[in-house]
Amino acid sequence: MSTVEELQKKVRELETKLAAFQSNVAPGRKKIDVMSSEVVDSNPYSRLMALKRMGIVDNYEKIRELSVAVVGVGGVGSVTAEMLTRCGIGKLILFDYDKVELANMNRLFFQPHQAGLSKVDAAAATLQNINPDVTIDAYNYNITTVDNFQKFCDTIRAGSLTGGPVDLVLSCVDNFEARMAINTACNELNQNWFESGVSENAVSGHIQFIVPGETACFACAPPLVVASKIDEKTLKREGVCAASLPTTMGIVAGFLVQNTLKYLLSFGNVTHYLGYSALTDYFPTMSLKPNPQCDDIYCRQRQSEVNARPAPVEVATEVTEDDSPVHTDNQWGICLIDENVPEEEDTSNLNLVDGVQVAYSIPVDNGTPESSTGGAVAASELSLEELMKQMKSM
Amino acid sequence: MSTVEELQKKVRELETKLAAFQSNVAPGRKKIDVMSSEVVDSNPYSRLMALKRMGIVDNYEKIRELSVAVVGVGGVGSVTAEMLTRCGIGKLILFDYDKVELANMNRLFFQPHQAGLSKVDAAAATLQNINPDVTIDAYNYNITTVDNFQKFCDTIRAGSLTGGPVDLVLSCVDNFEARMAINTACNELNQNWFESGVSENAVSGHIQFIVPGETACFACAPPLVVASKIDEKTLKREGVCAASLPTTMGIVAGFLVQNTLKYLLSFGNVTHYLGYSALTDYFPTMSLKPNPQCDDIYCRQRQSEVNARPAPVEVATEVTEDDSPVHTDNQWGICLIDENVPEEEDTSNLNLVDGVQVAYSIPVDNGTPESSTGGAVAASELSLEELMKQMKSM
Repeated sequence: MSTVEELQKKVRELETKLAAFQSNVAPGRKKIDVMSSEVVDSNPYSRLMALKRMGIVDNYEKIRELSVAVVGVGGVGSVTAEMLTRCGIGKLILFDYDKVELANMNRLFFQPHQAGLSKVDAAAATLQNINPDVTIDAYNYNITTVDNFQKFCDTIRAGSLTGGPVDLVLSCVDNFEARMAINTACNELNQNWFESGVSENAVSGHIQFIVPGETACFACAPPLVVASKIDEKTLKREGVCAASLPTTMGIVAGFLVQNTLKYLLSFGNVTHYLGYSALTDYFPTMSLKPNPQCDDIYCRQRQSEVNARPAPVEVATEVTEDDSPVHTDNQWGICLIDENVPEEEDTSNLNLVDGVQVAYSIPVDNGTPESSTGGAVAASELSLEELMKQMKSM
Repeated sequence: MSTVEELQKKVRELETKLAAFQSNVAPGRKKIDVMSSEVVDSNPYSRLMALKRMGIVDNYEKIRELSVAVVGVGGVGSVTAEMLTRCGIGKLILFDYDKVELANMNRLFFQPHQAGLSKVDAAAATLQNINPDVTIDAYNYNITTVDNFQKFCDTIRAGSLTGGPVDLVLSCVDNFEARMAINTACNELNQNWFESGVSENAVSGHIQFIVPGETACFACAPPLVVASKIDEKTLKREGVCAASLPTTMGIVAGFLVQNTLKYLLSFGNVTHYLGYSALTDYFPTMSLKPNPQCDDIYCRQRQSEVNARPAPVEVATEVTEDDSPVHTDNQWGICLIDENVPEEEDTSNLNLVDGVQVAYSIPVDNGTPESSTGGAVAASELSLEELMKQMKSM
């Protein structure tokens, strides 16, 4: 054994073995063929199937046919994947290229003995042990490189249990480039997805449902965050380690998977944008229509397709400000934090509720690279134009 | 990583790690004496200490001196304990008397190989491995029996790291008796605590902050839940296995620990009552004043003490309906689901916001025992009078 290929294979084998060992300290449970609603202690699905008897979900066992891709297995993505696994999702597809570190231990899911393992391998082993009925595919690569982006698109397009497109993509990434890559892929593939994010100060977060052509995509409008009543300057310092909390990330993952379940199993109302501000327990909701001048050609194409339909269905396409909470403590102004964004973009689609702000300044210089922000909404090092150019060149 | 030497080194590292596992040495991490804010991958506290730099928390390391009791280590309590452990709480005291079952696998935290173990022992082992710096005490008993209730009170009174009262009690129990026991203890001990609950249909939940004498205690007013727009009758069927979801329970645990952190570390605003309705993403908040005719003698005593203070401080004692969200989809009526509750109790303190209902019918007969409700808000088999009599006789 001496060639690089052989050694790489060996490393991969050992990592897989180790990950399996680490979560399989004792054997898990056997596979179960059919979800049963039998009320016995040994049935891991009894409390889920009870949702049918409770009149919440009509057809819970349908979840076993469904496939969800989780992009980013950090503070939000790992909990998201665990929730879906425990809910008995049919297939879970994980993407990440990071390694577990002790610095991640302030969030749920990973444990100290997993430090050094790849996040997707460590996660897949733990999740498979929790629920062996779930098909889990793990991809250990960065989706934003040209080759990997194509592989990512192919997986989204044909990754379901039956070889068709996945039922939903969940973005749990921590940077602008990866969000734009997901957005580009989903617009082209006409794939519904949720974006999620947590602020660098750890006390606010959001989820956003994106239906290509029907709701604003990630390129239609700058992404939004819930303002936290703190000086914006504290968010803009460079080279500063982002803060994170298991609470905020667990809550955002909870919102993400709860709305995923509502969407996949057709119960309740799927919220288009749900924010969370921890300091005041404030939860703004809203809907955003797509931007007819969106830079993404596939977004504009999806909009044309939606407009060509005989009558609008499913999702409202108007800007509707939900009759939203006006919190007594809300003293936030609505402001755009970067004046470099063209003004027509700022105003045409941004009918923001109180307490919600634009998440990013679209950076104009390629200055000092920022430190890793682990699950936070990080500013890009590239301008939007440069990034779009890169994307289009793929 | 590409050279043969590097790969060989990696293989040796992995093999060593694997061997350690195979010889049954579960390598967690070493204890850390002082919380550091150093930004390195090996520091499990870097992202928490960053809350100071971000201007959110003044003195994060104070958390290592603080003690929290978590009563009930089920779907909400286990995640609550894990979040506090990962946040580096000084001491965690766990109470439960249940065993882990495969039927619990639809919620976060416990894993199939732990089935059959006591919840507190299984939880303590996992948590200690996640963070060896936390002092964890685990009590495997039912706090509602006479002897255990006294032991419970003694632990709350003298369980902190310095032998004084704990800093906070978190109720994560699934039944009325246990909540009443915690309420009785906390009123007598003048101990602040949070109540939490998740509905039997799994799609709503709440947390409530109780400051004896300042806010309504559990005996002042029937506990509240967020209504779920479903037929109440579906909630009242007997012998039906309660539904539960990892999402709702994770979100409620997140709210509970987030407000715990705000209270313990003095940042943001602690919410007195925060509800969550999953079907519509609706989050009512409110405050409730104590009932001057509360059945709990210690509650009335705490109220007298508060009233005797020169000026009201800290917490508002009036019924203040927060300027709360009026959701567009809110068609819920406010109703009391049991007319056996004396009318003066129903009206004096229940200035409920839309979508919030009383959680329990106070049962009048000792009929069919209900099946376990695992984390759900369960009805008691005893009348309030009988229960109060029991409590007083202790």
